[in-house]
Amino acid sequence: MTTVQATPALFVKMAISAWDSQVKQMDKLIESFTDEQWMSEIAPGKNRGIYILGHLAAVNDYMLSLFEFSDRLHPEWEHMFIRTPDKSGHEFPSLEQLKKYWRQVNEALASNFGKMEPEAWFLKHTSVSDEIFVKEPHRNKLNVLINRTNHQSYHLGQLVLLQKLNTD
Amino acid sequence: MTTVQATPALFVKMAISAWDSQVKQMDKLIESFTDEQWMSEIAPGKNRGIYILGHLAAVNDYMLSLFEFSDRLHPEWEHMFIRTPDKSGHEFPSLEQLKKYWRQVNEALASNFGKMEPEAWFLKHTSVSDEIFVKEPHRNKLNVLINRTNHQSYHLGQLVLLQKLNTD
Repeated sequence: MTTVQATPALFVKMAISAWDSQVKQMDKLIESFTDEQWMSEIAPGKNRGIYILGHLAAVNDYMLSLFEFSDRLHPEWEHMFIRTPDKSGHEFPSLEQLKKYWRQVNEALASNFGKMEPEAWFLKHTSVSDEIFVKEPHRNKLNVLINRTNHQSYHLGQLVLLQKLNTD
Repeated sequence: MTTVQATPALFVKMAISAWDSQVKQMDKLIESFTDEQWMSEIAPGKNRGIYILGHLAAVNDYMLSLFEFSDRLHPEWEHMFIRTPDKSGHEFPSLEQLKKYWRQVNEALASNFGKMEPEAWFLKHTSVSDEIFVKEPHRNKLNVLINRTNHQSYHLGQLVLLQKLNTD
């Protein structure tokens, strides 16, 4: 017999599990890549690994404020990693700082996600007005998580190109 | 006032909307890329665009059977686009055939998705047994869609590297 459950708790679990899986894949790249790999371009003339690392951490950091969990950890890094492309002349934080940033942001998110009731995911985030939310109830926090999960996958697909840098 | 809706219909809408958005991004690349771009490697020594196009279409085709909508349109292409990597010596279908394949598979999926009641997304797919599904109710069709959406994003992140091939 097949049981059907279609509860908010189950749906939230599925969405968080997809998110966690992308974060873990990134964690594995962080463990395995050398500094040289992070400083390389994913393809000739394209973004470097270090920019994508900072970009993903800064986008996740932004969720801390978007979901009203806390202030961002490093709002001062938004400009170089979100508003401007790689090689815009900014002096980047060190790789060690960025790896720590990635870890700290995701720990803060996971800790806050763990305290949320399933229904809380269906509330609006700070960049949607009450008026719009009444008409577009899908513009909730869970939808942001789903979109950010896809965004992480998109860049993971690029970062894996830095694997086996000199072998194939 | 903020309204909260956390219905299966809303979750399903959010997940399908994320899926549609990835399919549309791929459709745009199909409209804009030249044959030369499709035949190029996303990075030196890596997969060619044509392989990724065939891979994504074949993975989506597989969903037709996984969700028990119909037989697959081209099961004979699974081997070259899913089971073996690019440059394994297979003679690929033409780019025109693959673009048509992508369109046909996604039209068939969209048509079937449109007929599903929200609760039907929470039923198991064909690769999960009844016994496992009782213990792991998140292994439902909607979860497959969420994971496949991420998988599409992952490869889209790679395909965009073929943009502006000779300019940056």
